[in-house]
Amino acid sequence: MLALAGYPLGLRFQFFDPDPNAPAAHLADNMFHTYSEEDALARFAEGVDLITYEFENVPVSAARLLNARRPVYPPPAALEMSQDRIVEKGALSALGIPTPAFAPIGNGSDLNAEIASAIAQTGLPAVLKTRRMGYDGKGQRVVASEAELRDAVNDLGSSDLILEGFIDFSAEYSLLSARNISGEICFYPLVRNVHRGGILRRSQTQTPSAPGELQAIAESYAQLLLKELDYVGVLAIEFFVVDGALVANEIAPRVHNSGHWTIEGAETSQFENHLRAILDYPLGSTRLRGCVGMLNIIGSPPPVSDVLGIPGAHLHLYGKSSRPNRKIGHITVLRDSEEQLNAALEALERITV
Amino acid sequence: MLALAGYPLGLRFQFFDPDPNAPAAHLADNMFHTYSEEDALARFAEGVDLITYEFENVPVSAARLLNARRPVYPPPAALEMSQDRIVEKGALSALGIPTPAFAPIGNGSDLNAEIASAIAQTGLPAVLKTRRMGYDGKGQRVVASEAELRDAVNDLGSSDLILEGFIDFSAEYSLLSARNISGEICFYPLVRNVHRGGILRRSQTQTPSAPGELQAIAESYAQLLLKELDYVGVLAIEFFVVDGALVANEIAPRVHNSGHWTIEGAETSQFENHLRAILDYPLGSTRLRGCVGMLNIIGSPPPVSDVLGIPGAHLHLYGKSSRPNRKIGHITVLRDSEEQLNAALEALERITV
Repeated sequence: MLALAGYPLGLRFQFFDPDPNAPAAHLADNMFHTYSEEDALARFAEGVDLITYEFENVPVSAARLLNARRPVYPPPAALEMSQDRIVEKGALSALGIPTPAFAPIGNGSDLNAEIASAIAQTGLPAVLKTRRMGYDGKGQRVVASEAELRDAVNDLGSSDLILEGFIDFSAEYSLLSARNISGEICFYPLVRNVHRGGILRRSQTQTPSAPGELQAIAESYAQLLLKELDYVGVLAIEFFVVDGALVANEIAPRVHNSGHWTIEGAETSQFENHLRAILDYPLGSTRLRGCVGMLNIIGSPPPVSDVLGIPGAHLHLYGKSSRPNRKIGHITVLRDSEEQLNAALEALERITV
Repeated sequence: MLALAGYPLGLRFQFFDPDPNAPAAHLADNMFHTYSEEDALARFAEGVDLITYEFENVPVSAARLLNARRPVYPPPAALEMSQDRIVEKGALSALGIPTPAFAPIGNGSDLNAEIASAIAQTGLPAVLKTRRMGYDGKGQRVVASEAELRDAVNDLGSSDLILEGFIDFSAEYSLLSARNISGEICFYPLVRNVHRGGILRRSQTQTPSAPGELQAIAESYAQLLLKELDYVGVLAIEFFVVDGALVANEIAPRVHNSGHWTIEGAETSQFENHLRAILDYPLGSTRLRGCVGMLNIIGSPPPVSDVLGIPGAHLHLYGKSSRPNRKIGHITVLRDSEEQLNAALEALERITV
């Protein structure tokens, strides 16, 4: 989607991906190597002017190796921060951005003492997570007692874990922001996200009843983070809403699934604004074009004709093969009213099981 | 632009182009051969399910050769009709669609008699054109007398010419329409076109003062033509407005430059609707998203930052090298009012000389 947004700007692309079946495989002459092949990374860097990434589990070592040869945006420091839940929550807290209570588990000398101390900080129930490489709800477990926590620690591997306070949220939102090299910043309207089995299913803008005060607070948090990291590109922050207040859950230093609706739903898409940011062009307007929702296509594709027959529906298939729980596309719906939008989303939910 | 619209629908592309520097060269694994290499055309057909074209000077022989192996849309008969101004105007006239008066020159046994007879039909001044391969105002000459016509006939090659009545038009419009395999038809709003030195410079929708009766008449003409040709895909018809009535100038059996604004300016772009049509999917809404204008970038590219700094401007560069009078990109402007739109277009005209 970055390339599709970039070709009209006159840009040319090369992709580095370990998977020869990656969605971008058809879109340019690409390189398929693992991130640990330093020679391949160096050759890749030589062939391009500028490097970005859209996958937050790119090894930081690879990003730094590339950054020594060509500019890499967003900055590898942001990538590093986002890859370790302890570092991430520590950095957010240090900036005064609320997060769930958290404590490390599994890296000290006395596991029992760590467990007791962690529970003292988070209370129960709590959520045990791997510090690294978690996504779509993988590598995490809700625990209600010390005994359950002990079992979960053993199951998840005993080290590099984090215990987080269980958040009884009323809603989940995400804020997409962008900052260019010159420091210009823009924000998209907050979107409300609905997950299913830990996987993002639906994102929806909140017009006309947007939570005005939450938008301003979310933007102030994002601004702190963008400046602290001297950030360049699109940044997503996921929030829980607890008793009407925002609690930051995690950040993603990249274009984000909860912003895919911007292709049709905003004046400038997150993909184009990411490219504008890393090329230091003026950022584009993030204004909504109507009432917008997005539905992820998970597992297998729906009948194309049925989707295109629904007014306001815009289909995006990624060219990925079908597999349970795999996000293989999304549908954006753009309508004039919330009622029309909800009707279309409900019709689409029935055909994209 | 067809490919960029098609990738999100899950489509894969191969391009056949004689020019290895064609804009699509970066977007897929392509074949670069002349249209007369039958073996190459046959191999191309074997590698795809369906074939379309976006250049009306593709030789009809190549289109027919391909069509014997795979479906080719729009139908080669439409391509053939559009390539010969005599056949084209004859077909339009036969359907009752008004055209300028016209007469062939240069294919009879007595050139003097042909010239006299042609002038009798068209009057003077008149426009002498080559019957084939004309575009962007090339291969045509306005003549005010029989002597000028004689000179022009010699200059343009003496055969395969057409003399057309000179049309003193108040405006030029084009109508984009689409028809899918099942016969579903849709129309875009008429756009007003402004040419500069024979080359399309600006296309602009006419909101809120759209010429309502002209829209209905243009649609009725298009409907006749779409059905007559059993047409599949996007069809453009260019009209002159003379004394408030529409006179058809020419047709283009393809996505058309005067419809490039639909990428941002309509709910569904002409490119997506062309693909929907040839795949027999339901056609998408052609509703305007606001006040829309398009400016062609001719010759050399403007500074990207300056373009992107203008509110509502969306840049499209085709990856073509600079050359005088060559269309190398376009800019769409989408705004809330005609005033804002005109201001933005004027600002853009200053930076895209």
